Amino acid sequence: MAPTTPTVVVPIDLKKKPNEQKLTLHNRWHPEIPPVAEVKVGELFRVEMVDFTGGAIKDNDSAIDVKTSDLSTVHYLSGPIKVVDEQGIPAKPGDLLAVEICNLGPLPGDEWGYTATFDRENGGGFLTDHFPCATKAIWYFEGIYAYSPHIPGVRFPGLTHPGIIGTAPSMELLKIWNERESELEETGLQSLKLCEIQEGTPEWKKIAMEAARTIPGRENGGNCDIKNLSRGSKIYLPVFVDGANLSTGDMHFSQGDGEVTFCGAIEMSGFLDLKCKIIRGGMKEYLTPMGPTPLHVNPIFEIGPVEPRFSEWLVFEGISVDESGRQHYLDATVAYKRAVLNAIDYLSKFGYSKEQVYLLLSCCPCEGRISGIVDSPNAVATLAVPTAIFDQDIRPKTSKVPVGPRLVRKPDVLKCSYEGNLPTTENPGARI
Amino acid sequence: MAPTTPTVVVPIDLKKKPNEQKLTLHNRWHPEIPPVAEVKVGELFRVEMVDFTGGAIKDNDSAIDVKTSDLSTVHYLSGPIKVVDEQGIPAKPGDLLAVEICNLGPLPGDEWGYTATFDRENGGGFLTDHFPCATKAIWYFEGIYAYSPHIPGVRFPGLTHPGIIGTAPSMELLKIWNERESELEETGLQSLKLCEIQEGTPEWKKIAMEAARTIPGRENGGNCDIKNLSRGSKIYLPVFVDGANLSTGDMHFSQGDGEVTFCGAIEMSGFLDLKCKIIRGGMKEYLTPMGPTPLHVNPIFEIGPVEPRFSEWLVFEGISVDESGRQHYLDATVAYKRAVLNAIDYLSKFGYSKEQVYLLLSCCPCEGRISGIVDSPNAVATLAVPTAIFDQDIRPKTSKVPVGPRLVRKPDVLKCSYEGNLPTTENPGARI
Amino acid sequence: MAPTTPTVVVPIDLKKKPNEQKLTLHNRWHPEIPPVAEVKVGELFRVEMVDFTGGAIKDNDSAIDVKTSDLSTVHYLSGPIKVVDEQGIPAKPGDLLAVEICNLGPLPGDEWGYTATFDRENGGGFLTDHFPCATKAIWYFEGIYAYSPHIPGVRFPGLTHPGIIGTAPSMELLKIWNERESELEETGLQSLKLCEIQEGTPEWKKIAMEAARTIPGRENGGNCDIKNLSRGSKIYLPVFVDGANLSTGDMHFSQGDGEVTFCGAIEMSGFLDLKCKIIRGGMKEYLTPMGPTPLHVNPIFEIGPVEPRFSEWLVFEGISVDESGRQHYLDATVAYKRAVLNAIDYLSKFGYSKEQVYLLLSCCPCEGRISGIVDSPNAVATLAVPTAIFDQDIRPKTSKVPVGPRLVRKPDVLKCSYEGNLPTTENPGARI
Amino acid sequence: MAPTTPTVVVPIDLKKKPNEQKLTLHNRWHPEIPPVAEVKVGELFRVEMVDFTGGAIKDNDSAIDVKTSDLSTVHYLSGPIKVVDEQGIPAKPGDLLAVEICNLGPLPGDEWGYTATFDRENGGGFLTDHFPCATKAIWYFEGIYAYSPHIPGVRFPGLTHPGIIGTAPSMELLKIWNERESELEETGLQSLKLCEIQEGTPEWKKIAMEAARTIPGRENGGNCDIKNLSRGSKIYLPVFVDGANLSTGDMHFSQGDGEVTFCGAIEMSGFLDLKCKIIRGGMKEYLTPMGPTPLHVNPIFEIGPVEPRFSEWLVFEGISVDESGRQHYLDATVAYKRAVLNAIDYLSKFGYSKEQVYLLLSCCPCEGRISGIVDSPNAVATLAVPTAIFDQDIRPKTSKVPVGPRLVRKPDVLKCSYEGNLPTTENPGARI
Repeated sequence: MAPTTPTVVVPIDLKKKPNEQKLTLHNRWHPEIPPVAEVKVGELFRVEMVDFTGGAIKDNDSAIDVKTSDLSTVHYLSGPIKVVDEQGIPAKPGDLLAVEICNLGPLPGDEWGYTATFDRENGGGFLTDHFPCATKAIWYFEGIYAYSPHIPGVRFPGLTHPGIIGTAPSMELLKIWNERESELEETGLQSLKLCEIQEGTPEWKKIAMEAARTIPGRENGGNCDIKNLSRGSKIYLPVFVDGANLSTGDMHFSQGDGEVTFCGAIEMSGFLDLKCKIIRGGMKEYLTPMGPTPLHVNPIFEIGPVEPRFSEWLVFEGISVDESGRQHYLDATVAYKRAVLNAIDYLSKFGYSKEQVYLLLSCCPCEGRISGIVDSPNAVATLAVPTAIFDQDIRPKTSKVPVGPRLVRKPDVLKCSYEGNLPTTENPGARI
Repeated sequence: MAPTTPTVVVPIDLKKKPNEQKLTLHNRWHPEIPPVAEVKVGELFRVEMVDFTGGAIKDNDSAIDVKTSDLSTVHYLSGPIKVVDEQGIPAKPGDLLAVEICNLGPLPGDEWGYTATFDRENGGGFLTDHFPCATKAIWYFEGIYAYSPHIPGVRFPGLTHPGIIGTAPSMELLKIWNERESELEETGLQSLKLCEIQEGTPEWKKIAMEAARTIPGRENGGNCDIKNLSRGSKIYLPVFVDGANLSTGDMHFSQGDGEVTFCGAIEMSGFLDLKCKIIRGGMKEYLTPMGPTPLHVNPIFEIGPVEPRFSEWLVFEGISVDESGRQHYLDATVAYKRAVLNAIDYLSKFGYSKEQVYLLLSCCPCEGRISGIVDSPNAVATLAVPTAIFDQDIRPKTSKVPVGPRLVRKPDVLKCSYEGNLPTTENPGARI
Repeated sequence: MAPTTPTVVVPIDLKKKPNEQKLTLHNRWHPEIPPVAEVKVGELFRVEMVDFTGGAIKDNDSAIDVKTSDLSTVHYLSGPIKVVDEQGIPAKPGDLLAVEICNLGPLPGDEWGYTATFDRENGGGFLTDHFPCATKAIWYFEGIYAYSPHIPGVRFPGLTHPGIIGTAPSMELLKIWNERESELEETGLQSLKLCEIQEGTPEWKKIAMEAARTIPGRENGGNCDIKNLSRGSKIYLPVFVDGANLSTGDMHFSQGDGEVTFCGAIEMSGFLDLKCKIIRGGMKEYLTPMGPTPLHVNPIFEIGPVEPRFSEWLVFEGISVDESGRQHYLDATVAYKRAVLNAIDYLSKFGYSKEQVYLLLSCCPCEGRISGIVDSPNAVATLAVPTAIFDQDIRPKTSKVPVGPRLVRKPDVLKCSYEGNLPTTENPGARI
Repeated sequence: MAPTTPTVVVPIDLKKKPNEQKLTLHNRWHPEIPPVAEVKVGELFRVEMVDFTGGAIKDNDSAIDVKTSDLSTVHYLSGPIKVVDEQGIPAKPGDLLAVEICNLGPLPGDEWGYTATFDRENGGGFLTDHFPCATKAIWYFEGIYAYSPHIPGVRFPGLTHPGIIGTAPSMELLKIWNERESELEETGLQSLKLCEIQEGTPEWKKIAMEAARTIPGRENGGNCDIKNLSRGSKIYLPVFVDGANLSTGDMHFSQGDGEVTFCGAIEMSGFLDLKCKIIRGGMKEYLTPMGPTPLHVNPIFEIGPVEPRFSEWLVFEGISVDESGRQHYLDATVAYKRAVLNAIDYLSKFGYSKEQVYLLLSCCPCEGRISGIVDSPNAVATLAVPTAIFDQDIRPKTSKVPVGPRLVRKPDVLKCSYEGNLPTTENPGARI
């Protein structure tokens, strides 16, 4: 074995279910979840992972599995991994853990993924008011490229990344999370409901009762869904417990900024080749608390050098006025929603259903920007779509597009089966 | 004269005040503001413009002019310009006006600009709670580069663009704006207060009473402050009145995404070389109303090919938890605020005051992204700063930074005069 | 005037001939050509220049001016400029002169250029055996873009640069040049013939007798025709005489690697905004003689950050076997010739004459690479052409191109007048 | 298995020698070498390969294996692979075979490579007059990055590619090659010497007697060593025999333009994931013979979208004057040699031996350009080195570098054993 062949510290057997894996997976954040592996700084190690649902979503043409998926058990994470220095001394609270993503990709033999929208009753998404039904698109990979039988005419290189990477919180930080999120009515069950993890021991029961869900990104990193955490990037994570206890999961072959459909990247199983460094005392040195305690910090990171290169972009703009015409004061979320809706409407003029475009914008390498955040009362957000991912020219043209009803690309490529309500020609998404 | 020497259709005399210019400037949106020039499609024409304050902010070391600036008269716009086709037929409501920015830059002899923060009482900015005082930094240009005596150690190429470019609204659209913005208490006087424009005639009085302010971006484009509208980009603007009546102003040598300090780009006078195309019926063909009327649309655009190239970025993350530790539900504005605050705190460890970094992030080519917008309850926003703009390595390092008080870069380069309260060593901004 | 408005140290009056300009131009390299201006390090200064022929080539549809142009008088250079440090002490032999190109462009009112092929009897070009006649294409500029009525269907952003920038040689270096070039029979008159410069004084006569031609790049920089010496780039030139005596000329709006037609970039008049730094003793510190004397050195440079961005390239390959099928041993020149010929043949399948493509490849932003130089007996060179400069898809396709004779784009756009021999349909170049 | 899991059509067992592999490898070009596998257009398939020497060079600190390597048996190629269309009809002479490189990389468990210089008696290299001895540097891979214990202080992402990819020649083309190369005295034994391939049958003996060596790139592609044939690129190869008979080998983790040391990329074993398309009649449609027969063509290709991104480059220039001061007429090979020598001398000022830099420039992602090829008598070539691959700032600086003898980085990292002659401090290469 070459000195740089990564050691697999968390292996995954694709033929087994999440709770049958050799090393226990976990699906909540808690300081007392015991490490399943230990790595030294400088060591190249591989972490394998199941997709965020642990195999619940299948490679087929029905979205029934998305509609009925049990979101109380996600995300399945690999880890925690204890990190020690050359002398075997663990990372300590107050240190900064520098994690370099040397490589990553799908698990061999499992080169496919899916993008979906949850049903409004089961999590919904950014535009759930417009797209309330569960839909699903399957993506196949050809090396660096992904294509979908459900969204024909597009193909793009992946900017692959883990949706979730983070360190374990301390009890104090965990308490801050639980309190701050419990005070927010709007979040509903989703972010609060605790659930049992794999083991039925009293220790795990206690953990299950106290642990935080994995849905949001937080001070420890977590589900930040930053699409640029790809090959060659370096993440500086705060350390809250001895050993740092690094966990990761929710691999994405590709994602658009915002991951708008929520189940929204190209979700897949995969592997990460990582290398860690400990910056002793780095939290104090480099991070500044942004709240009442020294724990209110955020990770920082450096972007890697091999992101896909696009030169032409078509950009959609949104302002903080909602679809009813109502004004919102400098609200970037509303502005971004409108930018995405504008893009969906525009691109659906090129032979796609709106469901197809919604799924596409959630997973293709599009960039979401906060362009203006001070020009009262309108925030301006933009969504930039690389034109090269399409097999047709999608730019506005002076010469009229051919008269007649637009050709909707369909059955031959849209192999979805629709149980119950058949889609109309205008609406051929993989809908339940 | 070569066939492609641009015709100057709106000239500016830098020695004259805004209201003394040969062609009347305007500072509000209204369908009845008469065009000052006419251009044909395909024609290359030049529009010159004053800076957004019309020369009120001076090249010196005091921010007193920022503190006392009269924001009721801004932004000074050049235009409107009537656009006609080869046969002389004007653009019509429902058309799309494609405007290509062929070139742009500062006005010769006026190669400087400023970035400032308004006093909290006079407009404030994105982080006005943290930075309530007026400050100012002067920037000088060396061709493609800008540097500031007030923020030493940084130099960057400009991604120059007009902060404002837009078509005239129809009366119907204007009415929509005025109603929708008047219903919003939070906006305060700023976006609603009407003011007299240059002329005292009854016609102008009527216009002044009805017209909309130029602060926000809206359906017509306007003050969208999109930093990528630079050389070679193409903007597709909806046409609401005969002739389109294109206006532009608020030139920025460079701006960071969000333009966080509000007076926040490198503000300057300048020129635009433009070329127009009319896409007949293009509004219906390419734009989709996003609201109760067919007028609720937004421009789209293509990015130009000569943006400055950076390969290394340090990225700061923010989540939708505010500085008091309070949770906000999927609020991208809060998340971006925290990302910017994180960046300010981090960069201030490298010898800068926080005021200097705040000004810098408002105008340097940093990118603000909506990274995650669905992971309830936290939106995740990121701010990416190109490391090459600094003359020192700003990345986190394992080896400790030299012990002792950090050296604040100062008097020799910080030539600001502080009237009244002298800044401390930690706080050497150009503050009033 | 803003502190960063560049001082014009060499002005050009476009209405005057080269020898009528206020400051004497020169067209040979010699240590005793007296400086026409002096600049301080750190100062931003502007140098204006005529096109390399001093206006001999006109904006029209005939190549007669190219055919009959007097190449004994070119290139017209602006300078020399003496460079001194802050204390007024001139750059000294052995120093390194760092020249930053802060900005550049065409002279206002003169926004056009030309690409041409010389007649075989008058200089020829890289492919003169294939293209023996004088041809010419005119290019007009629209800000960052150039387009040509003679080569329709292409438009590209310029990577503008001075073809010539260099310091004055010492007498010793000049002697080395004259000797080494006189020994080479193949070069013919072209590189050796001396000519009188502007003035008829005895001093100038002596200079004219001894001076070196400006055709080749040499140890002092000179006519290196490196297309990446554009905005923001920094050139480190060796200093051979007191004051460095910097000269520049031969502005190119755009050039392809190799400048294959010889009169081959988009040639134009223009301006350069420069800033100098002196690195004392830098020749010894940073350059290593590559020959018998310490003078056998070459400049180095850094590339600027605003080069046009292209993401898709079609690449043509050539090996060191010539058109007769003869083998040449690891000869990169032959390999590049074949790569260029391959590109010409390929692109001429898309409606262009070979003359048009030859002209195009000489001036568009194509990249010429030495890919393999060791795989005996074949050198491999490649020519990469950005596909986005065409208004059609030029990539090979499975589906056949429409049957029938290919449409040659012509008279309506090809407004050349052919004096004498009319071109055939296949051959619509601007030929004499 | 997912539908896009590539089928391994040529497997390699790393524990076996080249001639023990399951499928016969080959090391010469000949139309009658029988295909070892067949693939359909559109199918994703994997080709594995040994390194070009078939494992003769070892991961250790001695260059004795390089010095004594048997170059008569290289390169070991995987294939030929027969390509058929959906109906099973093979590619035919005159077709164009479009090969997309969907993915590639080192073989798992074998993540290392080497760069070496051959002894002058055994092949030498581009600069063999300056570097006559065998040297070797080992590189280890960390995902996308490579680093070497023999060249400390550099680390770079790989632009991985196959050095050799090509179709089988027809007998007619093979005859052209053998004749044209035999006429060239200079090539020496190297390119002409035939050798026996694996099998001892009469059929193989005949093939061995007639076949062409794999050293040079030729009309069929072959050893073109084009470093940009990486992930996502598409190669259009002419078809000369039924089935196309595609072969590939000589994988490079990374290579500099020119591959100057000859054994010069980071050589490794590896895999390629490929997908083919047949363009029927494409040779006539898209390629133009550049010689006496219709067979004198060259492949064309498109570059992929994920090349490593660098923003800062230091560029070295060379002119066609050799180290003795002698003039060569527009000779790009001489110019490039001088550019490389300039770079070696410059970079050796930063703590490296010249041997180390020579090895580095042969394998790091540096770009070799033909900048000027017409400015008689000097060709100008440039070599651009990305500054980000170094852990120190390698740009020229005004402030003097620390006085005293430069620190040579050595023994602790340079773990080479020197058998016989020990290197001096100035010369710590892995030399025999």
